[in-house]
Amino acid sequence: MSYEQISYQAENRVATITLDRPEKLNAFTHVMLGELVDALNQADGDDDVRAVVVTGRGRAFCAGADLSSGASSFDADARQVRGDVREMVDGVPRDGGGVLSLRIAAMRKPVIAAINGPAVGVGLTMTLPMDIRLAADSARMGFVFARRGLTPEAASSWFLPRIVGISQAMEWVSTGRIFDAEEAKSGRLVSYVHPADKLLDAAYALAAEIAQNTSAVAVAAARQLMWSMLGAANPWEAHRLDSKAIFQLGQSGDVAEGVKAFLEKRPAKFPLRVSEDYLTDLPPWPGAKPEA
Amino acid sequence: MSYEQISYQAENRVATITLDRPEKLNAFTHVMLGELVDALNQADGDDDVRAVVVTGRGRAFCAGADLSSGASSFDADARQVRGDVREMVDGVPRDGGGVLSLRIAAMRKPVIAAINGPAVGVGLTMTLPMDIRLAADSARMGFVFARRGLTPEAASSWFLPRIVGISQAMEWVSTGRIFDAEEAKSGRLVSYVHPADKLLDAAYALAAEIAQNTSAVAVAAARQLMWSMLGAANPWEAHRLDSKAIFQLGQSGDVAEGVKAFLEKRPAKFPLRVSEDYLTDLPPWPGAKPEA
Amino acid sequence: MSYEQISYQAENRVATITLDRPEKLNAFTHVMLGELVDALNQADGDDDVRAVVVTGRGRAFCAGADLSSGASSFDADARQVRGDVREMVDGVPRDGGGVLSLRIAAMRKPVIAAINGPAVGVGLTMTLPMDIRLAADSARMGFVFARRGLTPEAASSWFLPRIVGISQAMEWVSTGRIFDAEEAKSGRLVSYVHPADKLLDAAYALAAEIAQNTSAVAVAAARQLMWSMLGAANPWEAHRLDSKAIFQLGQSGDVAEGVKAFLEKRPAKFPLRVSEDYLTDLPPWPGAKPEA
Repeated sequence: MSYEQISYQAENRVATITLDRPEKLNAFTHVMLGELVDALNQADGDDDVRAVVVTGRGRAFCAGADLSSGASSFDADARQVRGDVREMVDGVPRDGGGVLSLRIAAMRKPVIAAINGPAVGVGLTMTLPMDIRLAADSARMGFVFARRGLTPEAASSWFLPRIVGISQAMEWVSTGRIFDAEEAKSGRLVSYVHPADKLLDAAYALAAEIAQNTSAVAVAAARQLMWSMLGAANPWEAHRLDSKAIFQLGQSGDVAEGVKAFLEKRPAKFPLRVSEDYLTDLPPWPGAKPEA
Repeated sequence: MSYEQISYQAENRVATITLDRPEKLNAFTHVMLGELVDALNQADGDDDVRAVVVTGRGRAFCAGADLSSGASSFDADARQVRGDVREMVDGVPRDGGGVLSLRIAAMRKPVIAAINGPAVGVGLTMTLPMDIRLAADSARMGFVFARRGLTPEAASSWFLPRIVGISQAMEWVSTGRIFDAEEAKSGRLVSYVHPADKLLDAAYALAAEIAQNTSAVAVAAARQLMWSMLGAANPWEAHRLDSKAIFQLGQSGDVAEGVKAFLEKRPAKFPLRVSEDYLTDLPPWPGAKPEA
Repeated sequence: MSYEQISYQAENRVATITLDRPEKLNAFTHVMLGELVDALNQADGDDDVRAVVVTGRGRAFCAGADLSSGASSFDADARQVRGDVREMVDGVPRDGGGVLSLRIAAMRKPVIAAINGPAVGVGLTMTLPMDIRLAADSARMGFVFARRGLTPEAASSWFLPRIVGISQAMEWVSTGRIFDAEEAKSGRLVSYVHPADKLLDAAYALAAEIAQNTSAVAVAAARQLMWSMLGAANPWEAHRLDSKAIFQLGQSGDVAEGVKAFLEKRPAKFPLRVSEDYLTDLPPWPGAKPEA
């Protein structure tokens, strides 16, 4: 397939989605949004893909929303005229960052952000529903919204305080400050910092650790369980879903093979496929639509 | 205005609320509660105030509830006689610490705690709904309630585990231990530790970073979104609110100016005022009254 | 009392529950589950017990589920035949790990895990509803489920992301990696790491700090409040419960004694007993049954 503003590659059981407008520091557009959703659909539907790495071409990860429309960049009427409104919710255009982040949240494959350079605004909030963030030591980040007169979007008010704590979230959001990779790590926004030229290797090593050792269906179900239970009122909800998941998986070929391989001290070859064998009985998070 | 047990000052776009009973280590009373709520209302209603700093006069931040009534300090009948019951909830007197902390939680300005010395009991739980806590290196803290036969109050059972994690919360609460500023920082209760004589400067520097760079309405809306979404079942709730906020702000003078100033590489002068231009369409957190 | 697969001891106001199948690295069985629930009931019902320490005999804490049934270890029909299904939920057998973890979550005494050696699978997830985890420096841990074709159980999808954050949780769960005590500490899964031969002493020191200084009823109520409010939509729910708890405790002998002892600078002797004097007006977490 061919995209205008991103590129997509799948090999070694890992899909790589690259934001690919290097001359614009990969600034986020309506076209890029559509292509990203398409690429995520493709990765999710491909049983050969066990994990997804998202990164940026050139020196930036993503400079945030494309501001080439100037003062009218976020104006709903002007956006309608430009044709960059995707769909509506509650009578207003859906926030495009949120369309993306909810699609990422619904993924059945782990998603790893390899933040290779500057990541600001939606360029940073889009990484919050990804599972693990790695950053280049040269990367700089910022939730700069309040400096532009905007609130943080992409459902980041739900994600960010759960990832870094409300106090760190309020400090970064209320100042709109740009901060470096070390501050991001000590604030628990990124898990690891690597030299820029080692970043992708580290992301692929993590993806390989998943791909080579685990059941695809088990990882997909665990991802859905853990993210959705972040909003659940009590652990009894988790217990009911656990009991169903264990009932289904416990009779499956993946558990039989997983236990057998372990007892025989050999690598497991799991037969189940996410496309066909996913646990249908797990609801998405309460009150939410499953996909954007 | 003139208060008995606190003082209030507003300058350089920052309000300072000082607990001001130094001879009693700023112990918390019914009078202080009323004055604090009044001062918070004043700061919230003043468009010249962009952030609030709360600190204590003298060597303590706040020694906790005033215990001058001895064994009957927390007895509801004795409190009625003393006239320190504010209002009722579910047939019992409302916890005074909770009246304060819910008012702080509903603020439209970021609140910074400058913990200049000992902060125990309600003197510590009152800081939990504040956004960022800074402590003097000499400050000592404790959730001492269980040592007095009480449970932690001020809605701290909701706030504390979300700030420091349930395990750290249970350790501090079940032992009732006094701990120092370094333990508070490594446990993520405070964001920064400073020498006592640099503490207020650091708090004001943080407040200035907010005041000088950001849209007041955007910060107020972000504060409400992030705190309220801590209790939301799923990110779709955030997405709906984001979409509304971006719809409204996207057509506002603040976004037009914010984007323009950024493109022109000059400081922004945001026209919107919290008092008049706040986003009316953002509900407070689900099921909660907006203000105490 | 006499158990087959665990041992139980109560002295110095602390109950110790020891997983006691050292020749099987304390692998978890249906028999062990029943005995653990019985021992927890006993500790909860004994007013002389102020805290519970859980540890393992020999070199392991718990090697996970007993896999001696091989490929059918988790198959529901085979489990029925083996008689290891305890009860049903939603038409499927209840996950045994969840039966245990929900019982631990409902405890009225703080529970301290002393992870003396390897803790994997249910051997690790069973510690998540415990309040504080200490580990020997030689301990190794892993959420290995996806390597066996299973999802994490014991309601860990609810507990784990709340303890270590969703990103660390996804990394450990999606790789199924074994990690050491230092990684567990930096990831906030354990609070302290000690040399193996000092581990139990440290656990008992923490238990003694609770037992010697605090009101048993206040600690029990604080434990219930903090865990249950992790799922509450807003701090107003906490405020209502706080107000009730303070109303009841404020008139109790524990507060009278706690305040008096503090003012007289002497240790308090709290009269209330958890068995008789617990706050009946605190609901368990919303929507949940109080005990497994």
